[in-house]
Amino acid sequence: LVGMEEKQSHNTERQHKAEGLLQELRLLRDKVNELEDEKSQYERKLKATKAEISNLQHLLLTKKTEIEHLQAQLLSRAPVSMDSA
Amino acid sequence: LVGMEEKQSHNTERQHKAEGLLQELRLLRDKVNELEDEKSQYERKLKATKAEISNLQHLLLTKKTEIEHLQAQLLSRAPVSMDSA
Repeated sequence: LVGMEEKQSHNTERQHKAEGLLQELRLLRDKVNELEDEKSQYERKLKATKAEISNLQHLLLTKKTEIEHLQAQLLSRAPVSMDSA
Repeated sequence: LVGMEEKQSHNTERQHKAEGLLQELRLLRDKVNELEDEKSQYERKLKATKAEISNLQHLLLTKKTEIEHLQAQLLSRAPVSMDSA
């Protein structure tokens, strides 16, 4: 009887270990799914911010061109210098 | 004897299942670590690109101010109009 109880106890312990492993597997699979979702969100965000950088750089370039244009206009309208007076 | 062989075969099968589970656990833990590394890389990249956007926006603001300044200068140096001639 004692031998049978020991065997029963051994089986129960093994059962608990297996359940523990399966539980850990479920948790890890959930974690992997969660992290993969986060990863694709980051990819989208990063793509969006890179597009924003590209837009800003383009806008900056147009502003630089505008500044050059205005400076050229200013030079052409500069008050007559003392030398030519 | 057949009973013992069956039991042995049953144990071997159970052993294989347990090894399979442990193997899957190891793979999932590696995957979780790998994904968490990627996540922190994305966080760094995203932080860097946001800082770049902030810099570009600041630069754009200085260019706009410069343009306004140049336009004001141009107005003040506008050729004398026909009315006042």
